[in-house]
Amino acid sequence: MSVLVVGSVALDSVETPFGKADEVLGGSANYFAASASHQTAVQLVGVVGSDYPMDKLEPLRARGVDLAGLERAEGESFRWRGRYRHDLNSAETLETRLGVFSHFKPKIPTQFKSAEYVFLANIDPRLQIDVLSQVERPKLVACDTMNFWIESRRPDLLTLLGKVDLITLNDAEARQLTEQANLVQAARWILERGPKTVLIKKGEHGAFMFTKDSVFFAPAYPLESVFDPTGAGDSFAGGFMGWLARTGDLSEANMRRAVVVGSAMGSFVVEGFSIKRLLEVSREDIENRVQDFHQLVAFDRALGA
Amino acid sequence: MSVLVVGSVALDSVETPFGKADEVLGGSANYFAASASHQTAVQLVGVVGSDYPMDKLEPLRARGVDLAGLERAEGESFRWRGRYRHDLNSAETLETRLGVFSHFKPKIPTQFKSAEYVFLANIDPRLQIDVLSQVERPKLVACDTMNFWIESRRPDLLTLLGKVDLITLNDAEARQLTEQANLVQAARWILERGPKTVLIKKGEHGAFMFTKDSVFFAPAYPLESVFDPTGAGDSFAGGFMGWLARTGDLSEANMRRAVVVGSAMGSFVVEGFSIKRLLEVSREDIENRVQDFHQLVAFDRALGA
Repeated sequence: MSVLVVGSVALDSVETPFGKADEVLGGSANYFAASASHQTAVQLVGVVGSDYPMDKLEPLRARGVDLAGLERAEGESFRWRGRYRHDLNSAETLETRLGVFSHFKPKIPTQFKSAEYVFLANIDPRLQIDVLSQVERPKLVACDTMNFWIESRRPDLLTLLGKVDLITLNDAEARQLTEQANLVQAARWILERGPKTVLIKKGEHGAFMFTKDSVFFAPAYPLESVFDPTGAGDSFAGGFMGWLARTGDLSEANMRRAVVVGSAMGSFVVEGFSIKRLLEVSREDIENRVQDFHQLVAFDRALGA
Repeated sequence: MSVLVVGSVALDSVETPFGKADEVLGGSANYFAASASHQTAVQLVGVVGSDYPMDKLEPLRARGVDLAGLERAEGESFRWRGRYRHDLNSAETLETRLGVFSHFKPKIPTQFKSAEYVFLANIDPRLQIDVLSQVERPKLVACDTMNFWIESRRPDLLTLLGKVDLITLNDAEARQLTEQANLVQAARWILERGPKTVLIKKGEHGAFMFTKDSVFFAPAYPLESVFDPTGAGDSFAGGFMGWLARTGDLSEANMRRAVVVGSAMGSFVVEGFSIKRLLEVSREDIENRVQDFHQLVAFDRALGA
């Protein structure tokens, strides 16, 4: 089963302690699609300006990403310029030029409307809600969000929560949205407002999956060198949703496995600029990293004294 | 097999968003001993002033903590006063009065010198080295340290590294000691200087155990309410060392199990002030939490598509 993603398609210019990249593929939809494409076919909905280097998207198309929903609008593409300091913990935004993205009005192509797995990447919650009115009856709808929408579109975001099955957000966003310092309480707050599953991403500190009855935790893979953290969250989401769409299995056990696939994809993407590593890794690399994750946390609970 | 701990025995006054505690049992040796006592007999070496409420130590003695090495010196006991803000992430020290602890010169009682498991809690590395000259031939020596010693006693700390089997320190201390931002590289740096095992504690973000050939990660238990984070690291160490001393098994598998026992103890101690929760929990509670940890990270690595 394919997965539909609606999000940003951007050009990023990034500076890290290890190098610089100019005008490379960026945006949530690109990262998500490149990641999910290892598991299943991807349908992408987004917008680019007339200046977007469409040839750079060819590797995505070649990997089974259907770009029929990628609108080309008159004007400039969305550009983000950022810098990471030595600790790589948080991006410093140097410049954001929304361009045509500021008028983005997602239009889901007819052939995408029957999508069973839908990821509403981080865009205006009003648009995320609008997308849901265009699709038929997905098996799983997940959304992401960010501090900007939590502040400026709170009522819409709460409406959205009532319409999605799952939300991914980082720990700071979870605390901001719920006004709960404790993540367990934050997750419960969200679970009471609609989503059956809450994925809280903690960057280098791993990710939690909360449901009403269970908590699952996957660490971030302890990498020896993190090159560029951009896109880790969307790559995580892509691996997670891609795995679910590929397997069609929404059991707790399989969703745990999906979190680990997501974590594996997050650990790959930060090894290089843009989606470079996502295009390089093989399904075997992913499988090996999933096994590494198992080894990382495995302990013998029967071992006694 | 019993475990020997050398460290501070203090009186803490703590303020958290949830309440206040005045002049309660504190200090690394107290936390360590209360935690380890669930697994094995503990030998404690430390110093208190003539004003220390010795009756408050009775519960420890009753749990098998041998206080023969607890010196009573003329003068004031070590007192620490601190406050945690809403996020509970870091203690703000309001006052430290070292008292008799500033002249602490650990003297290991004859009957403690054959200790096979030794924990050198966070004291001056010169004293930690001196303790090692007093014990016979321990099977495992572990040490803790802190930013103050990393700054002021770096050469001694490096000497100590060459004499211990294992070091526990938090992520900030590991970065400070090694001048490596990346924890994997920081661990390697330390492993090259003596210890065969490095335990890096990340507080609410869990703990890593690094050896030359492996990495193990245990999350912190996702508690719904953290009451007072004081002593979590020493309780972690107590559970870890206590389990090793109880089982006498230094295999990788058993050391992983020990990390989880340590994490369990760390998760209990923060549920109340001082060592209160460590005195309340049963071996069954600990075992149940170990199983909870297993459930928290368990995923089916064989699950395929």
